[in-house]
Amino acid sequence: MWAGAAGQSFLRGVRNLDRVERVYCVNPKGGELDDGTPLYHSLAEIPDDVDYVISAVPASAILGLIDDVVAKGVRAIHLFTAGFSETGSGERAELEREALRRLREGGVRLIGPNCMGIHSTRGGVSFMESASRVAGRVGMLSQSGMNASEALSRGQPRGVRFSNVASFGNAADLNEADFLQFLADDPDTDVVLAYLEGIRDGQRFLQVAKSMAGRRPLAVLKGGLTEAGGRAANSHTGSLAGSAQIWRAVQRQAGFMPAESVDELLDIAVTIERMPEIAGPRAAVLGGGGGVSVLAADICDRAGIPVPWFGERTQERLRGFTPLAGTSVRNPLDAGFMFEGEHLEAALTAVAEDESIDWMMVHTGTDSGFRGGDRGNFEERFAAKLGELAPKLARPLAVVIRPPSSASGFQSGLALQQRLNEAGIACYGSLEACVTAVRRYLDWQTHPART
Amino acid sequence: MWAGAAGQSFLRGVRNLDRVERVYCVNPKGGELDDGTPLYHSLAEIPDDVDYVISAVPASAILGLIDDVVAKGVRAIHLFTAGFSETGSGERAELEREALRRLREGGVRLIGPNCMGIHSTRGGVSFMESASRVAGRVGMLSQSGMNASEALSRGQPRGVRFSNVASFGNAADLNEADFLQFLADDPDTDVVLAYLEGIRDGQRFLQVAKSMAGRRPLAVLKGGLTEAGGRAANSHTGSLAGSAQIWRAVQRQAGFMPAESVDELLDIAVTIERMPEIAGPRAAVLGGGGGVSVLAADICDRAGIPVPWFGERTQERLRGFTPLAGTSVRNPLDAGFMFEGEHLEAALTAVAEDESIDWMMVHTGTDSGFRGGDRGNFEERFAAKLGELAPKLARPLAVVIRPPSSASGFQSGLALQQRLNEAGIACYGSLEACVTAVRRYLDWQTHPART
Repeated sequence: MWAGAAGQSFLRGVRNLDRVERVYCVNPKGGELDDGTPLYHSLAEIPDDVDYVISAVPASAILGLIDDVVAKGVRAIHLFTAGFSETGSGERAELEREALRRLREGGVRLIGPNCMGIHSTRGGVSFMESASRVAGRVGMLSQSGMNASEALSRGQPRGVRFSNVASFGNAADLNEADFLQFLADDPDTDVVLAYLEGIRDGQRFLQVAKSMAGRRPLAVLKGGLTEAGGRAANSHTGSLAGSAQIWRAVQRQAGFMPAESVDELLDIAVTIERMPEIAGPRAAVLGGGGGVSVLAADICDRAGIPVPWFGERTQERLRGFTPLAGTSVRNPLDAGFMFEGEHLEAALTAVAEDESIDWMMVHTGTDSGFRGGDRGNFEERFAAKLGELAPKLARPLAVVIRPPSSASGFQSGLALQQRLNEAGIACYGSLEACVTAVRRYLDWQTHPART
Repeated sequence: MWAGAAGQSFLRGVRNLDRVERVYCVNPKGGELDDGTPLYHSLAEIPDDVDYVISAVPASAILGLIDDVVAKGVRAIHLFTAGFSETGSGERAELEREALRRLREGGVRLIGPNCMGIHSTRGGVSFMESASRVAGRVGMLSQSGMNASEALSRGQPRGVRFSNVASFGNAADLNEADFLQFLADDPDTDVVLAYLEGIRDGQRFLQVAKSMAGRRPLAVLKGGLTEAGGRAANSHTGSLAGSAQIWRAVQRQAGFMPAESVDELLDIAVTIERMPEIAGPRAAVLGGGGGVSVLAADICDRAGIPVPWFGERTQERLRGFTPLAGTSVRNPLDAGFMFEGEHLEAALTAVAEDESIDWMMVHTGTDSGFRGGDRGNFEERFAAKLGELAPKLARPLAVVIRPPSSASGFQSGLALQQRLNEAGIACYGSLEACVTAVRRYLDWQTHPART
């Protein structure tokens, strides 16, 4: 059931993924779309069984549609349609309850209302017209369609590929516990991300989350934990967001990873997919710039990531090819020279063999003048070298591309990131982002709920 | 006194600003640069008085140069030259002391060693080859050359223009208190930013900082406050960074604004230059996306920025042109529609007149699909409209351009930012950045040290 621009956007999402055999469009006015796609006057008119319906009709037309859906024997309906309990109006909340009552009687499951619904790369349905057609192993549930869309679109340059994503809005029928259960068992999913506002079924959510501990990583961004945010969540999805204190207790008990933004969710996914073998927090920090190195060490320390001095043997090896002035061979290794040719291999190899560290973080800027001496084709050569080296190094490697401030720096950063993605190297947009995600993942690994 | 590539970079910095009448280059080998610039064999050979010397000679040649400098009657020398006390070597520290002793005897002031020295837009000297030639009113002192360079280069797209900037490294002679004193009194400076590692003269620094309270805003990024950072600072500039506890006490007493990154320093400068009239913390948050609005409210609340509901009258006015479904007219105003044409003016005007708020924050993405319906020439029309409206609004306006993830989104964000800069509208790269800076500025305004 398609109405106007929104409906056609879902149609383009399905066509972009190109996996669904038969899609039918309905509009009471009939006629056809610009590309010749016929518009059926009603569901009943479609000369075929229908499994799944996406509704973009106005809320006022919803009960008629639902009666048609039940009569047609549809299995599930997604209501993009909004204007129900989230408005705070008693009448609209009653309409939502009545819709749900009729669907339940008819044995039809409901996603929404007031949501973007399902993105399933393999299933061929998406709320995103230009979603990547490459299926990945990251699943997501999100009470907000926009945050789900942001995860998909911001995940694209990060190399984070999704399996199944559900935006479920008011959660009148299927709720967070249902989607979490699905993703906990989904054979196409390895890592689960969540954006939640209210919790409909806290008991079951906690139980499913606990069952995932030690088995399938789960990271949750909880919106509405402050007073102002809680009020906004109530306006958005009619959710009662609950107190930060209770949520922290839930988080501690279930052992999932907390996140504070969509980008943090993606950072966690990158860490788990590309540095699964990280064995402890102690970092080696390598990159150019004394002041940047000092701040990097502060950032690590505050995030609970120690930056211990390298052993004497490592310092000696580094001193072998380090100019004395303006650099430090202790840790952080303040070493712009490192980005030039053969020194990179020598430095990384020496550091990777140091017993005092668990992982290595190389940081670089991409604005002209902030990426060491090696400027022509920097990203190509740097990524090629790292891609060749990383599998041979004794410790996992992360790369931080510091935020650019020029268009050329952004382009160069995107290109570098893409090449690092291809080489399977974990890549982050800031030092904070990297160390926060690593810390979260390590905490998850050692959480007592893990069995 | 120029040696090789580094020296020529300083020469290009001076030539780019094009304010210094006569520049002479020295290299013991003589000859000339590719562009025909003659190289004098020594300072003595220069047929003119010399006021200021930039040294890029190796540390081993420093005493000879200093004797020449004293003999020539130079007023000040900047030692880009590194390899002194920051190396941790006793011999090198002694060399630094000896250099200083000879300079003091000769009445020559020293900047450095181990630093980038001075950028003065009006003075015509810069460590940055491509520094903006437009002088501004933001001054900076920085123990790190890289952090000073980052402030200059990252400030460029932000529209932050500098007056005088000093990178002073080991601070053997002129130290943080001297540069702060200069900037506190500098008639070309209104706002002072600082990056510090160690404090050489705590007593005087505190006294100058206190004297600035209520008169000239000062924001300080302190590196090395953690254990790991402190060790790194010691390797970098030989600084003893001191404890976080002591520093917080200093900050409280002197009343300057703390910052945690170079970007935060720039955010503070933007706030002071473009929203000086902000009278309180209560924010109106306007932009598209329910989930984003919830998280925005959380971010504000955590930063101590209240997001109170609008008054009944405002809500009524907003309801007049707001579709019921999927939006909230309370606060945040979740309103993608707002970016379309005449609604922007109506919404901003209604909100600006609400007694319950002190300032307005409009947020938008610039990736395709995250900036409301109005896509063609979005940034041009949006900025033009805001530029026209802002002076008429009853409350100060800030614009947040959420971080883009596509090259086109970055380009569009840069273009939007540039137009907002031209219109004098405060512009930030994230919601966190905006509310943190506003909070710091408000705290500074009401600090008891302000008299």
